[in-house]
Amino acid sequence: MRAVDLIQKKRDGGELTASELTFLVDGYCEGDIPDYQMSAWAMAVLFRGMTAAETAALTLAMANSGDQVDLAPIAGIKVDKHSTGGVGDKTTLIVAPLVASIGVPVAKMSGRGLGHTGGTIDKLESIAGFQTELSREKFMSQVNELGLSVIGQSGNLAPADKKLYALRDVTGTVESIPLIASSVMSKKIAAGADAIVLDVKTGSGAFMKTLEQSEELAQAMVAIGTKVGRQTAAIISDMDQPLGFAIGNALEVKESIETLQGKGPEDLTELCLTLGAHMTVLGGKAENVEEAKTLLRSQLNNGAALEKFRQFVAAQGGDGSVADDPSKLPVAPVVIEVKATDNGYVKAIDAERLGTAAMLLGAGRATKDAEIDYAVGIVMTKKVGDKVHAGETLAVLHARRNGEAEAEVAEQVRGAYAVDSTKPDLRPLLLSIVTADGVTRTE
Amino acid sequence: MRAVDLIQKKRDGGELTASELTFLVDGYCEGDIPDYQMSAWAMAVLFRGMTAAETAALTLAMANSGDQVDLAPIAGIKVDKHSTGGVGDKTTLIVAPLVASIGVPVAKMSGRGLGHTGGTIDKLESIAGFQTELSREKFMSQVNELGLSVIGQSGNLAPADKKLYALRDVTGTVESIPLIASSVMSKKIAAGADAIVLDVKTGSGAFMKTLEQSEELAQAMVAIGTKVGRQTAAIISDMDQPLGFAIGNALEVKESIETLQGKGPEDLTELCLTLGAHMTVLGGKAENVEEAKTLLRSQLNNGAALEKFRQFVAAQGGDGSVADDPSKLPVAPVVIEVKATDNGYVKAIDAERLGTAAMLLGAGRATKDAEIDYAVGIVMTKKVGDKVHAGETLAVLHARRNGEAEAEVAEQVRGAYAVDSTKPDLRPLLLSIVTADGVTRTE
Repeated sequence: MRAVDLIQKKRDGGELTASELTFLVDGYCEGDIPDYQMSAWAMAVLFRGMTAAETAALTLAMANSGDQVDLAPIAGIKVDKHSTGGVGDKTTLIVAPLVASIGVPVAKMSGRGLGHTGGTIDKLESIAGFQTELSREKFMSQVNELGLSVIGQSGNLAPADKKLYALRDVTGTVESIPLIASSVMSKKIAAGADAIVLDVKTGSGAFMKTLEQSEELAQAMVAIGTKVGRQTAAIISDMDQPLGFAIGNALEVKESIETLQGKGPEDLTELCLTLGAHMTVLGGKAENVEEAKTLLRSQLNNGAALEKFRQFVAAQGGDGSVADDPSKLPVAPVVIEVKATDNGYVKAIDAERLGTAAMLLGAGRATKDAEIDYAVGIVMTKKVGDKVHAGETLAVLHARRNGEAEAEVAEQVRGAYAVDSTKPDLRPLLLSIVTADGVTRTE
Repeated sequence: MRAVDLIQKKRDGGELTASELTFLVDGYCEGDIPDYQMSAWAMAVLFRGMTAAETAALTLAMANSGDQVDLAPIAGIKVDKHSTGGVGDKTTLIVAPLVASIGVPVAKMSGRGLGHTGGTIDKLESIAGFQTELSREKFMSQVNELGLSVIGQSGNLAPADKKLYALRDVTGTVESIPLIASSVMSKKIAAGADAIVLDVKTGSGAFMKTLEQSEELAQAMVAIGTKVGRQTAAIISDMDQPLGFAIGNALEVKESIETLQGKGPEDLTELCLTLGAHMTVLGGKAENVEEAKTLLRSQLNNGAALEKFRQFVAAQGGDGSVADDPSKLPVAPVVIEVKATDNGYVKAIDAERLGTAAMLLGAGRATKDAEIDYAVGIVMTKKVGDKVHAGETLAVLHARRNGEAEAEVAEQVRGAYAVDSTKPDLRPLLLSIVTADGVTRTE
């Protein structure tokens, strides 16, 4: 087999076999196939697409390229959850203890943040003492005992994906639905869960700008999961504005705790209940999504979800009492209010711009090795559709100091808000549900 | 400027500017832009194409990447000729002295053969003593004095093209008309001629299999030449079977001498007169192609073209008397006749297969550094349309020995002939003429 023949086959619209894709992935991983052949192949895929069978075969080849986590020592159906990345997305902090509280085991490996999006591991580490590096044994036994553990990605999961992604990033080959889908799913499959619930973001703050693109990506990922024997469902949720009100590590933990107390923002609560309900159904703990939602809602209201969070924090070395007193989380010394200059309605909020603003305050990493400041961030007071008067506060910056840089960030946050004289039409947070049976749009 | 942005621009159907293409070519040549970005760009070009302006800009950038030959010391309009490569193509050996004999200066750099196609330089070197490495000064002065010199490509002509071509070869990005056109033309432009006549081969033995593809390539090359101020015309000629009867270095020189004596094969003579006529018109030595053809035909018949060949060989150190006595050329010790097994008409001759057969006898190089045997080759006795009886000779192998390898080659030559019971329709040798004014198909 020669790589150049496989590139030409794809270029000419052919379908590569599983063994041909494995040859490419393994050869690339081992250095036998050079970058310049993989980038030409990726560009051909970008133009020609891949069939469902090809996409699944590529995913498996990448999942098989490194360590594969065996979650068999954990009893029950292990359900993983993945978000395609957004601003203010703290759903894992809420959904994980929520579903664990009704007996769905969550054995989750999460990532750190980069650029304008935050990472679950960074958020958890804003709780004093919280450990995100556990041994594989401790991780498994904690899930068996408590039903829940979240740790940083360790080991060598899907190294072929890592290498290919870095190459795609510099060769104009990122924007291919089958390549994006196989990249996400290869890591999820290597991480060992039995079932997967995907939160695919759509809108100005997401990688996928239109609902159609997002549904296509979701369908591709669900098809892969189904083909490789992992039950998979996807929710398409709005990312035209950030999720909830808080952006920044400790600020998002605080909002998560409020949500677990049943007092969270409506959009965040709704998304968490929906994601959790799908996880519950896939985990075999409810007959259908509506039943699961009712069950989970009562776990928020009766304190059981919060209690699971408290135990989870304590089990990983953190101070569990933050669950009752979030003021124990790091607090930024300076608060800066960003005021509206016009009267009207908030028409749009540029989520990516707010994410970048939070990063500039110190909440995120501009480069992989940058240190982050857990306390800082942004809390929005106005969201899309809200009425606003000139001089009213749009958002509050939580900052380390009040200097020139912060003044610039405040301007950037003000610029992220578009205010218009007419009340905008609001689209719902939950837009579609994608399962192996097809796409269902919500009203 | 970043290479990844230019790749994306092309991928999305945009048109790159001349400075963007120069950035890519120079950066690639200097090693600042890696292979994996150029191959992704080339694949995007393969799918998206390039405009005439882009193709010309790419060509100029590649022509400017190395040495540029300045033919100004040579008086008159210097006309170059290029063939896209075929089997049995010895036209340069005939056309160069033919047009030089009526005052069109020919200062030509030629290549060596590789694979199933032969090279002009190898053919000339089959004449004892012939020197193909001359100093730049000697080359120029010979053209000024004699009107003609042919030497091997020396120096560093269009190194960017060389590097990019090697990359395209292993990344499935050869088959792009604008990339093929710019590759050919960058070398021609760097070689310094004022005008260029292209012989674009079409058919089973050529890279371009259909007339439409060949015309598209010819138009792209003519457009480049026109855009950069070098008058360019192209002939599309048939390569469904080899040109003339002889394949192999000394055998082709012998056939060329016969053609210069006015006794050559009809197809070869006709193609040489046509190519020569276009060169003559571009060189300003005739008003139109018909007039030029008449002029050149008389130069074949009155011995002037042959005399120019004799002087040319002598000027470069060879024995000019081969012009009158081709038996002085190297002769192979063994002759093997390949006989027909069926009665009927020759329906097709696989030119590429015959080219490979000649190479296997020793007439060509399987690898770049292989030595070649000037004496060996194949002389066809039957061509397409000829009536043939079982037991009649189809072709004669001129070989170094008569062993197992030669028996295999004989089988391969027999297999290259398709014999059918009905007389095939013959298509003309000259199919189209392409100039800046458009495409004209011959009848």
